[in-house]
Amino acid sequence: MDELKERIRREGKDLGRGILKVDGFINHQVDPDLMVRVGQDLARRFRRQAVTKVLTAEISGIAPALTTALALGVPVVYARKTRPITMPPAVFVAQAPSHTKGGTVDLMVSPEFMGPGDRVLIIDDFLASGSTIGSLANLVFISRAELVGIGAVVEKAFEGGRQELEALGVPVEAVVTIASMQDGHFVFADEENA
Amino acid sequence: MDELKERIRREGKDLGRGILKVDGFINHQVDPDLMVRVGQDLARRFRRQAVTKVLTAEISGIAPALTTALALGVPVVYARKTRPITMPPAVFVAQAPSHTKGGTVDLMVSPEFMGPGDRVLIIDDFLASGSTIGSLANLVFISRAELVGIGAVVEKAFEGGRQELEALGVPVEAVVTIASMQDGHFVFADEENA
Repeated sequence: MDELKERIRREGKDLGRGILKVDGFINHQVDPDLMVRVGQDLARRFRRQAVTKVLTAEISGIAPALTTALALGVPVVYARKTRPITMPPAVFVAQAPSHTKGGTVDLMVSPEFMGPGDRVLIIDDFLASGSTIGSLANLVFISRAELVGIGAVVEKAFEGGRQELEALGVPVEAVVTIASMQDGHFVFADEENA
Repeated sequence: MDELKERIRREGKDLGRGILKVDGFINHQVDPDLMVRVGQDLARRFRRQAVTKVLTAEISGIAPALTTALALGVPVVYARKTRPITMPPAVFVAQAPSHTKGGTVDLMVSPEFMGPGDRVLIIDDFLASGSTIGSLANLVFISRAELVGIGAVVEKAFEGGRQELEALGVPVEAVVTIASMQDGHFVFADEENA
């Protein structure tokens, strides 16, 4: 998706150690029009998977998961990290690494909203090491729903998450894949040998 | 908005002590089509405010704020509760009550994304006591942007938040206003004397 590559080139910042700052349009400030087009792009990639539900993790997965679900015409569920008072006492839980606090954090989904018969597409903003998405996949498995695909807005190929996730046997797609970034220069996977 | 009232009547659960469970379509599982129409309804109410930015708080404000911003054609910023590594060291901070942990939590916005010249519309899923929205208003004030409106998906009128917020001198709007709930029976404000 050329529009997203352009935004990353123009506004993204390589903060070093693999950290990409895109909080002007993806994960602090969000460009809603761009996010709708990102959702349409992701939906198109999974059109044949007969998705019944999109699953993401709060917080920054919510925007792209919502627009993907909108384009697919299905509900979206965001796994909670803190338990709201409206959540029933028995829930599906999987541990995920905490990017902001270190250690691990619980991802929780109510059994009211995911279970046998659901065909689940996982969507997140980033595919990096794959560990958050792997935790979401664990939630799908323990709910006895079927995982049918994994999609991300931005893949950082140099962190190797795709290899982990492809072992799950479902399609793994990213709107844009960054092969490398160095000193503010971004190389996208489909341009590596161009 | 009759569609939302119907969903609350059919799927909402009064858990007692003023707690309304609507996590099947608003704040755990989200119905994207409904949320787009909610955003259009909110946008219509603030059309004349020349909004340049929508502000919300993670987590459950993100979906309605995104769809409202989409309908208005402006960016949306969600105040963070934990500091991402991509956030600069100097940020705007306001304390808000924590609904899940007790005590208070910091709401943070990067000065890159809100400041003088911005006309800010605050959107959240619930207007209850008004304390979270009041904290967001404080963020607007310390950023020296202008607050031009406050909107919520569901107002619980019996918690009195509107009185607090109207003192700010900007329009306060809710898609639906619940005047009272008791034993699973919901009375909406515009039907009170019907």
